[in-house]
Amino acid sequence: MHDLSNILGQITPIEQNWMERAKERQDRLTKPPQSLGKLEEIACRLAAIQQTLRPVVDRKRIVIFAGDHGITEEGVSPYPVEVTAQMVANFLNGGAAINALARTAGAELVIVDAGVKAAIPPIDISGKAVRFVQKPVRQGTRNFARGPALTREETLSAISLGYEMAIDAKNAGVNLLGAGEMGIGNTTTASAITAALTGLPAASVTGRGTGADDEILSRKRQVVDEALRLHNCAPGDALGILQAFGGLELAAMAGLYLGAAATRIAIICDGFIASASAALAVRICPACSGYLFAGHLSTEPGHAPLLAIVQHEPLLNLNMRLGEGTGAALAMNIVDAAVRAFVEMATFDSAGVSDKQELTQEVDR
Amino acid sequence: MHDLSNILGQITPIEQNWMERAKERQDRLTKPPQSLGKLEEIACRLAAIQQTLRPVVDRKRIVIFAGDHGITEEGVSPYPVEVTAQMVANFLNGGAAINALARTAGAELVIVDAGVKAAIPPIDISGKAVRFVQKPVRQGTRNFARGPALTREETLSAISLGYEMAIDAKNAGVNLLGAGEMGIGNTTTASAITAALTGLPAASVTGRGTGADDEILSRKRQVVDEALRLHNCAPGDALGILQAFGGLELAAMAGLYLGAAATRIAIICDGFIASASAALAVRICPACSGYLFAGHLSTEPGHAPLLAIVQHEPLLNLNMRLGEGTGAALAMNIVDAAVRAFVEMATFDSAGVSDKQELTQEVDR
Repeated sequence: MHDLSNILGQITPIEQNWMERAKERQDRLTKPPQSLGKLEEIACRLAAIQQTLRPVVDRKRIVIFAGDHGITEEGVSPYPVEVTAQMVANFLNGGAAINALARTAGAELVIVDAGVKAAIPPIDISGKAVRFVQKPVRQGTRNFARGPALTREETLSAISLGYEMAIDAKNAGVNLLGAGEMGIGNTTTASAITAALTGLPAASVTGRGTGADDEILSRKRQVVDEALRLHNCAPGDALGILQAFGGLELAAMAGLYLGAAATRIAIICDGFIASASAALAVRICPACSGYLFAGHLSTEPGHAPLLAIVQHEPLLNLNMRLGEGTGAALAMNIVDAAVRAFVEMATFDSAGVSDKQELTQEVDR
Repeated sequence: MHDLSNILGQITPIEQNWMERAKERQDRLTKPPQSLGKLEEIACRLAAIQQTLRPVVDRKRIVIFAGDHGITEEGVSPYPVEVTAQMVANFLNGGAAINALARTAGAELVIVDAGVKAAIPPIDISGKAVRFVQKPVRQGTRNFARGPALTREETLSAISLGYEMAIDAKNAGVNLLGAGEMGIGNTTTASAITAALTGLPAASVTGRGTGADDEILSRKRQVVDEALRLHNCAPGDALGILQAFGGLELAAMAGLYLGAAATRIAIICDGFIASASAALAVRICPACSGYLFAGHLSTEPGHAPLLAIVQHEPLLNLNMRLGEGTGAALAMNIVDAAVRAFVEMATFDSAGVSDKQELTQEVDR
């Protein structure tokens, strides 16, 4: 198991100096200054992450962690718990939304069983564009309505698993990561984490998830509310919060974010659950934020407060609420485009285009 | 020259029946209903446009129309008019933002000189991933501060040119089009068009364009304000508005939108200027709206009122204001992803995933 303090010791903040050098180049490219908006910021950050004015995004990978949640015993999801395992099989068969979106993004897909409860139907994935890593820490978390979802040891093991997946990506030459998840019941877990991290009331950060009706929604809110009182976590104690509520896929994703920062890989987080995990990672290590991008804004009400902790605006807002890494996959193309514009565009000088002011041309020489 | 009434005669509204059949399929796919948000609406519309439950987006093309504007005589842009021709050369050389973004989107690029004033530097484009169509209607428009920018004949010629480019795309098997433009001074033209179409005051729809300072901005607003009084166009008279203000690239884009609708090709419009043209096309033929997608929301203040006419929400909001089709190019990936998810995903039944309700499964059988 990788030691957390060891992981954290490898993370350094992205350097302002690289951001400024990249910004200087942006202003010499054949476009009015700042006219590419957020694309310019994205490219500058990629330059800082990769420490070069020629950043590259040519190997993309989405890592999906799957895990189950003891809290489903409280009737918080309209879907049965077996769906987690069934959807893992669907990922391996290539039939889920994330398979189609990863193909569109040109991204590899790695599915990690971090703690699925039901047996995953055996699937022959030979020749399929997907990898399957089976390293469950345990078969689902404990019911956090009754006690801690995980032990400290289990929490650290799941973080270590995520970190391992970042190292694996680095070794494969991946330069853009996406994080996704699958776990029936995990919007309830993420809502509890959000409330614990932000101090916001359960009702304001707990939504319908996969499509809870009014009855299930009110039960979710009550479950979260009571669990907050039961565990009484300090907002700054990210590890304690993870241990109290789980889940294994959330802890593993936090490990992936930390590992991406440790190995200097840009990483896009997906929606509500992936962002709960990103907010935990940023609480554990604020420097991690520089390596993170927020893929999209989910319709879940708890998502925006999490993005405030992560300190990023979402790249997309398409009323999505699916998880699986789908928002991250869609946002990959934007990061790719931002980097290619930055690297491939001509400067005013090289293209013989008249600039607005002589001053900018002089900087160029 | 293609006759406008002939073009309009070929356009029929997309059919609600196809939308509903596509929606029915969406609800059987392995995801909570509506969880892919706007992606689901996009795919349903593509199904209706292509009249099939297996829509395809595998050949994308961005058509950029370039043209100059007599209104630049009034000092409304910080860039000299020669920049239009220079940027066309930059497009042909592959050094502009749209070249990088089209490459990222996997889209072909066609540059059309619809009315550039200065000589376009000769560029050898053999072996380059770009096509150049030189069919200028005239070398720039007349100054609309003094009189009509175009004659009726010139306006119709430019529309016909755009229509021709749609036919050309259809013959090449293109199934997703993007519209872009280049023309120094054309935010002033687009602002005048927006004010004329909406009745909004010049000040509220006229922005800084490529980066006008306070002095130029106030001149732009005054120019637009006075021109509105001079031409006094009826908001419903789209052709009259085009004739009054130009420009040739705006008229040609309108022809492209109409041609895309006539040939049933989905088309993404870009930012402020491309949307001014789309709003004109929709005024000329409301059924055209069903074939249109709004790529992004520009930072130009006149853009949102135009999208209200076009009746679409922007897919992206990235603080961009470059034109060239850059927002359309970025949005292509989203349309592509939406269609692939719709076509490639498994259903609950075929994947053996337990659905929320038995009812939905029965529909599936």
